[in-house]
Amino acid sequence: MFASRRGSLPNPTPMIAMGSHLDTQPRGGRYDGILGVVAAVEVLRTLAENGYSTHHDVGIVNWTNEEGARFPKSMMASGVWAGKIPLEQAYSLPDIFDPSVTVKSELQRLGYIGDVACSSTGYPLGAHFELHIEQGPILQESRKKIGVVQGGQAYRWFTVTVSGRDAHTGTTPFKSRSDPLLAASKMIVSSNAIAKKLGALASTGVFKIPPSSSTNTIASNVTFTLDIRHPDDAVVDEVQRFCTESFQAIAKEDGHGVKVDMSLDTDSPATKFDTDCIKMVEKAATKLVGVDGWLHITSGAGHDSVNTSSRCPTTMIFVPCKDGVSHHPEEYCSPEDCALGAQTLLESVINYDEF
Amino acid sequence: MFASRRGSLPNPTPMIAMGSHLDTQPRGGRYDGILGVVAAVEVLRTLAENGYSTHHDVGIVNWTNEEGARFPKSMMASGVWAGKIPLEQAYSLPDIFDPSVTVKSELQRLGYIGDVACSSTGYPLGAHFELHIEQGPILQESRKKIGVVQGGQAYRWFTVTVSGRDAHTGTTPFKSRSDPLLAASKMIVSSNAIAKKLGALASTGVFKIPPSSSTNTIASNVTFTLDIRHPDDAVVDEVQRFCTESFQAIAKEDGHGVKVDMSLDTDSPATKFDTDCIKMVEKAATKLVGVDGWLHITSGAGHDSVNTSSRCPTTMIFVPCKDGVSHHPEEYCSPEDCALGAQTLLESVINYDEF
Ligand SMILES: NC(=O)NCCC(=O)O
Ligand SMILES: NC(=O)NCCC(=O)O
Repeated sequence: MFASRRGSLPNPTPMIAMGSHLDTQPRGGRYDGILGVVAAVEVLRTLAENGYSTHHDVGIVNWTNEEGARFPKSMMASGVWAGKIPLEQAYSLPDIFDPSVTVKSELQRLGYIGDVACSSTGYPLGAHFELHIEQGPILQESRKKIGVVQGGQAYRWFTVTVSGRDAHTGTTPFKSRSDPLLAASKMIVSSNAIAKKLGALASTGVFKIPPSSSTNTIASNVTFTLDIRHPDDAVVDEVQRFCTESFQAIAKEDGHGVKVDMSLDTDSPATKFDTDCIKMVEKAATKLVGVDGWLHITSGAGHDSVNTSSRCPTTMIFVPCKDGVSHHPEEYCSPEDCALGAQTLLESVINYDEF
Repeated sequence: MFASRRGSLPNPTPMIAMGSHLDTQPRGGRYDGILGVVAAVEVLRTLAENGYSTHHDVGIVNWTNEEGARFPKSMMASGVWAGKIPLEQAYSLPDIFDPSVTVKSELQRLGYIGDVACSSTGYPLGAHFELHIEQGPILQESRKKIGVVQGGQAYRWFTVTVSGRDAHTGTTPFKSRSDPLLAASKMIVSSNAIAKKLGALASTGVFKIPPSSSTNTIASNVTFTLDIRHPDDAVVDEVQRFCTESFQAIAKEDGHGVKVDMSLDTDSPATKFDTDCIKMVEKAATKLVGVDGWLHITSGAGHDSVNTSSRCPTTMIFVPCKDGVSHHPEEYCSPEDCALGAQTLLESVINYDEF
């Protein structure tokens, strides 16, 4: 969804967009994405109510299905716009609960399929500014009000499968075992140590064993996920390489050993945001909270801005969220911080328009 | 189920029993328990067919519900007989798939509720010999044919609950996390190292995280089981103590820390089998396979004999099973090893009868 307000230049130019997403996660939150769109509406209203005339067109984008919660593909619409996801692939994504419903059938049913091209050539943008809650604890812990986002860190997701052999816990000596749960535990501990050493992140969120598991049976196999992140692609490479080597060594360490397989699920390279856009946000933030009130920050998570940045000058503005919690009913950003974020968004856009 | 053949002594004495169980696990096996009962029938038939007269009564016991697979309480009937499980508690155990069916209702329906007391006073036994597959790899790996069982090792089962806080894997630095999956992995690795150092066993068979888990979310909590075993109760104590200390330390190690709770589910102390019974099996085994053909062994798993040994002289005879596998469709003991086990059972009973 695009909304645009004409600027004063005689020929319309691609609009300076304020974009984010209105869709959310099943259990929350009320700010992740929504704040960026609601603040953009507030900015546009403020310009209109005050009769403020920008040079360039200024507008709003609500990017459909950023979360991928109902139609399982995250950052969908911005991915289509940036040419990373084919339109037909996005259209045919099925509802996870009712596969007879697709993105296309729902857009048609709701009257939102429209005739505006969702592409950077059909609907080009002059710039993209996104206000978003941080979704992490850095601003709160460092007592800063605004995060000026430098880019998005690289991340790579793996599924690791460790195969052994089920055996009786009471009758099978360690040396006769092929224990994938012990090996997987060692791999998780090792990936954490490797990431710590290299200043990167490595995290396991999913850990699965067969449903027939029991207290007195060694599991036959274990599957776990590994999420590696760092602002620098080369460091992600390095963590991956050390993990692969370490997992192979661990697989041979105990008893008869286990088999390990690591498959790549997602590869999202590092993104550097536009230096001019960043300067405009820095200027706005310094004016509003002083030079000590804001922080340079790299986005830990993926956002629509990661997609737009490949097609137009882009940056993001982060505001603190309580305890860094998101995707959760407890997700919270105070009214004061929301307002400060909206004001920073307004002034950044004005700065960019005048620049 | 008790079956008895009269001996030649003028007054009947509590029978020398050959006992095991006919019930099994959903996916196997065909030998665990069944071999001991079928071999006992073969021994009694052999005595009858050859007109061999023992001094004492000799007989068979089929202990109901040793596995606890359908009615979830293992070693049930031998536990009732030994006075460890109240009869009414056993009777009222529900079928795990249809709780309207109980042990008592099924015994009644099948006509097997009987009027023979299942107790060591109502139906005393003079001794209890149990032939069983090893369920472990020790005999196969040491190329021995018979295991002369010294007793059952102690085992203690725990459920360990580790609580943290769900957080985004991309936006939450290590120092801000409370990651129970990482902590649980460290605990499993640590329990393994502690057990190895003390020559004991510590194993985790079950590892559970909330169903809402995802690749890019730190889990909020983890539950895993810990099964500690050693032939000596004091060593089990020691492993437990070191694990408790280590888990507490690990809980504080990373980020904001996690909470850990360890609850005891099962406590089965070490069992020493009867030295006279053991001597009778040693004598039989030496005759059949030579002094180098058998091994002293401690049962890693619980058996009906662990229960009978508290009420009458008891021991067990182990035969090798392929790759130590049991509770599995691949469970296998060769016809030759089954026969050798049955012959050892026969000769051990004869030896005990003459002793
Ligand atoms: N913002 C957000 O949660 N994006 C999902 C992809 C990621 O894990 O970074
Ligand atoms: N024989 C057997 O598997 N018993 C179950 C209890 C145990 O784990 O030792």
